[in-house]
Amino acid sequence: LATSTYFRLWDGRASLNEGALLRFSPDFTTQVIRRLDPNFAVCYDQRTRVPLWTLEHLTRETITMGKNVDRGNSIFREDNRIHTFFRSTNQDYSGSGFDRGHMIPSADHRSSQESMNNTFFLSNIAPQVGKGFNRDKWAHLERYARALVKHYIGGLWILTGPLYLPRLDPTDNKLYVKYQVIGPNQVAVPTHFFKIMIGQQKDGQLDIYSYLMPNEPIDKDTPLEKFLVAPELIEQNAGFLITTEKIQKNKIRTINQPWIDFKL
Amino acid sequence: LATSTYFRLWDGRASLNEGALLRFSPDFTTQVIRRLDPNFAVCYDQRTRVPLWTLEHLTRETITMGKNVDRGNSIFREDNRIHTFFRSTNQDYSGSGFDRGHMIPSADHRSSQESMNNTFFLSNIAPQVGKGFNRDKWAHLERYARALVKHYIGGLWILTGPLYLPRLDPTDNKLYVKYQVIGPNQVAVPTHFFKIMIGQQKDGQLDIYSYLMPNEPIDKDTPLEKFLVAPELIEQNAGFLITTEKIQKNKIRTINQPWIDFKL
Ligand SMILES: [Mg+2]
Ligand SMILES: [Mg+2]
Repeated sequence: LATSTYFRLWDGRASLNEGALLRFSPDFTTQVIRRLDPNFAVCYDQRTRVPLWTLEHLTRETITMGKNVDRGNSIFREDNRIHTFFRSTNQDYSGSGFDRGHMIPSADHRSSQESMNNTFFLSNIAPQVGKGFNRDKWAHLERYARALVKHYIGGLWILTGPLYLPRLDPTDNKLYVKYQVIGPNQVAVPTHFFKIMIGQQKDGQLDIYSYLMPNEPIDKDTPLEKFLVAPELIEQNAGFLITTEKIQKNKIRTINQPWIDFKL
Repeated sequence: LATSTYFRLWDGRASLNEGALLRFSPDFTTQVIRRLDPNFAVCYDQRTRVPLWTLEHLTRETITMGKNVDRGNSIFREDNRIHTFFRSTNQDYSGSGFDRGHMIPSADHRSSQESMNNTFFLSNIAPQVGKGFNRDKWAHLERYARALVKHYIGGLWILTGPLYLPRLDPTDNKLYVKYQVIGPNQVAVPTHFFKIMIGQQKDGQLDIYSYLMPNEPIDKDTPLEKFLVAPELIEQNAGFLITTEKIQKNKIRTINQPWIDFKL
């Protein structure tokens, strides 16, 4: 591909014609969309070395544990289809103090060992605070998502990803985005994570749940409802449109109205 | 488009088939590539509200001032084809202390008033320090690029864009990316800017020049050569591949070897 792209551009003609510019740009992107499994995909950001967003389709089947499936057999693996310039590695996370946090949780796709293994590609991983977040409140939200699946016959689509939100610096009253980068590949440590869940009722109507959490230890008694935010807030900061543009307004039944008596 | 995408996804079937996931993602991106003119395009980053990269094709024609072309007739305009959630505005820059810095310089495309006007879309703009940078050393580099054009019969391709580079915090010995955001739309203020120039000789051989400058006042006596860096450094931080993958190695004559006796 690299060679053919080259020839399409630098074919020796003095390229003064209108097409000269465009011949250069078609596969010129900083994002790579990777279908890791039939039921999930990631959009990897080559600039930050973590995903921009991940998308999964959950059903009762995907969350039902298959025979002989064992999380202990899954190992974190580099994604070799990402160029080495942009690929995150286990070494980046090692000793960083951060967990290798799944965007698409392994427990969401446990019908086969292969699907579970596919959630362990590092292209699906971002640095998360372990205690109080990845292992606790964020895991709580993930369990809640799986509990929802049973109530949506059409399935549940979940978008998960990182954000880098600005904070006010009181010393100069200006807004700054600040985040750490870890390891030789300078993997970004997001300040927040979002999760948007879209559940489809039997009649096609949709319920949308939209969560935003800081990447920090969170008190275990904080109710999940406290992290509900308008989906537009996530869209504006993540850079994509879902509820604002991709979904017909009259198909939406509820937004951020958890209705399930949720005890986990 | 939004509606049809909706129907392709939520068509009422219980979507357990393999295609259910993919039907959701095709036009789901955080980047928008905009062809602003036959000779230049920008890849706008909806997350940062500035370009990820811009690409232009320079020839003697594009840099020759056309009849009655006047920079004073060009005004900075919002790019209405960017969704309001992500669109930068003049208000964002107003009073921020930063210049509206052209990525594709207006003086590069002055053969017609229309082409020059097209460089004034805010989708081609990023916040730059004015004195000592946009109006001085960065402008110096832009003049150098135009001086190069005369020497490349095949034309000159220029990639320009922002970077957000980490710095070591001596208090905890960790690396942090930190940048300001300005205005109601929180437009990112890049820490650095890059410019990669690819000149094509008559025989098809290529000369590559690769510059990286901090977005800060730079002493006017600093020679441009001081800002030459390996193109791979820019690629790794910008998230794309040009010299590493898109260009055949045996077509490259020189990298970072300015050979023109440059007096401006
Ligand atoms: Mg986890
Ligand atoms: Mg300028």
